[in-house]
Amino acid sequence: MDSRTARSRLTSARVGYLATVTAQNQAHVVPCCFAIDGDTLYSAVDGKPKSTLALRRVQNIRSNEAVSLLVDHYDEDWGQLWWVRVDGRARTADEAGERQRALALLATKYEQYRSTPPPGPVLVIDIARWRMWP
Amino acid sequence: MDSRTARSRLTSARVGYLATVTAQNQAHVVPCCFAIDGDTLYSAVDGKPKSTLALRRVQNIRSNEAVSLLVDHYDEDWGQLWWVRVDGRARTADEAGERQRALALLATKYEQYRSTPPPGPVLVIDIARWRMWP
Repeated sequence: MDSRTARSRLTSARVGYLATVTAQNQAHVVPCCFAIDGDTLYSAVDGKPKSTLALRRVQNIRSNEAVSLLVDHYDEDWGQLWWVRVDGRARTADEAGERQRALALLATKYEQYRSTPPPGPVLVIDIARWRMWP
Repeated sequence: MDSRTARSRLTSARVGYLATVTAQNQAHVVPCCFAIDGDTLYSAVDGKPKSTLALRRVQNIRSNEAVSLLVDHYDEDWGQLWWVRVDGRARTADEAGERQRALALLATKYEQYRSTPPPGPVLVIDIARWRMWP
């Protein structure tokens, strides 16, 4: 897969798998919606029911900013499998302008966000490395 | 979701997302095929093209055995979303009998493994905790 295809597949994927590390060095993984702008990835803590908006993923990036996000295609014909992964540094969007831009990008990609803008923190991942297979 | 449903969904899922931590405390995530037997999960390093069979995921569990594996269902109707996650300790199956049992389980679940048994290491995850949503 070339880097142009990898970018296109990551950009259009509807769900990604975000891996973080807890303060106790335990791996953690959650599915999440996200949007891409260049080499920056945004994901919001949205209104899908959760025990709290102070999510584990947000706690984790405070103690370890190194994260990894994967998108993939599964097919019973294993010749059709592919995945794209980005590694980078994560933070929360603390500046109002950045948060607004992120929410606008997310609402463009997901019509579900247009009626109900995500109330929680916005995660920002500055992508440092792209990996793809095959 | 009750625990019976969670077990059923994890058992039948065709692909999972395995999060590990590198020796440099970097989160890592890959898709993988797997099979479940009680509270033990098996995944093989198979013949799908890779740069090497000495995979990063195997290196990672040597330095940090705490792993997490997620399965999910994505749907544009966000009322239909669900995920199941198991956290546990990972190791490679070094005993021939355990490796053979794992490969038999994997071949039962994936007909793709029947013609081409996976040549690489078998990962064993002893599940310590189940998490599910919603």
